[in-house]
Amino acid sequence: MAFLTGRIKPVNKFITFEGIEGSGKSTQIELAVAYLREKAIPCVVTREPTGTDIGMKIADILFKREHGHLCAEAELLLFCAARAQHVRTVIQPALREGKVVLCDRFSDATYAYQGAGRGLDREIIRIINDYSAVHTRPDLTLLFDLPVEAGLKRATARNNRLDDPAASDRFERETLEFHRRIREGYLEILKNSPERFRLIDADRNIDAIQEDVRRHISALIKQ
Amino acid sequence: MAFLTGRIKPVNKFITFEGIEGSGKSTQIELAVAYLREKAIPCVVTREPTGTDIGMKIADILFKREHGHLCAEAELLLFCAARAQHVRTVIQPALREGKVVLCDRFSDATYAYQGAGRGLDREIIRIINDYSAVHTRPDLTLLFDLPVEAGLKRATARNNRLDDPAASDRFERETLEFHRRIREGYLEILKNSPERFRLIDADRNIDAIQEDVRRHISALIKQ
Repeated sequence: MAFLTGRIKPVNKFITFEGIEGSGKSTQIELAVAYLREKAIPCVVTREPTGTDIGMKIADILFKREHGHLCAEAELLLFCAARAQHVRTVIQPALREGKVVLCDRFSDATYAYQGAGRGLDREIIRIINDYSAVHTRPDLTLLFDLPVEAGLKRATARNNRLDDPAASDRFERETLEFHRRIREGYLEILKNSPERFRLIDADRNIDAIQEDVRRHISALIKQ
Repeated sequence: MAFLTGRIKPVNKFITFEGIEGSGKSTQIELAVAYLREKAIPCVVTREPTGTDIGMKIADILFKREHGHLCAEAELLLFCAARAQHVRTVIQPALREGKVVLCDRFSDATYAYQGAGRGLDREIIRIINDYSAVHTRPDLTLLFDLPVEAGLKRATARNNRLDDPAASDRFERETLEFHRRIREGYLEILKNSPERFRLIDADRNIDAIQEDVRRHISALIKQ
């Protein structure tokens, strides 16, 4: 009935949130969801690699600090396995139902982390990623950019808040240089797909950032 | 010293054991290892996907009966993630040390199970498998062949011996048709690589089968 009267409008748009550790993506997604719900726009919030029960188990392998010996190629294949399950059982069904899907990290993270960060071949990443994502591409990608030092400081503060100063995961424990390559990697991907990306200065207060987020989302769903 | 006197000869050969559920591979590998040790030939016995600690955790996801909803593409990527880690940290180092590596299942299982069994595209399997295996190919593959019904009966008997009639995993619980496709898949791969494969009639007693196994291994390591 609500649908028939036009109050709930199906908007099948796929929006991804990308950025280095501590870029504030999670907080911004929460606020973006509140915004969409206020507007009665049906949406699904999800994340990679933990958006499915299978992905949660894969993440156990990927993030554990004891798995420092996990090779880069297995890391790539594990992220893509989680994506294969996630796209087929969560993202595509939600888009088919006319929902907006907000996803914390997606394919671009693979190019940034395993490509720029680990130095794996971009062409094989493209092939394996396309296969796992069934060529699903975001309609809009918000890249939260800030200096690596500021991001890692925030991530550390978050771990301290969790009352476990040693809570850092396998990625957070990587070198500053690794995180710098990831930031540069993200900026390069953005440069190659300017039509899909919006760069957001994440080194500001939450409200200022959210204002940008809402403006970009609003522009997309009004299309 | 033993090496210098020629008593221990480095033989870096990679031998894989393939076959459907209940084909008796594991028993035959154990006996083959005893044979190589008698001859003082350094060897390593391993298996996929559980040949590494990472692989053990991946196997937890792959074989659990509750994971009936795991999609075929994620299944393929998980097996290949386990292989990527296994080849780089176990198989290649052992071969470099001049050892014989005996491996319970390898790439051919991926073509048989995910290709013939699940119906996934052979070309993408080839690409992802080559990437995960760093193009490592067995020098000899022993294919233990028997009728699917006989194999599944053995697998069930083994589960019963484990005192848990419900111990069957996600693969053992598949249809008879699925297992028939796998058997046919293996036979087709063998037809395309006759120089590497030896077909072993696995529907005989353990000693008769082991006699064939030793003959084929012996011919290889004498080369």
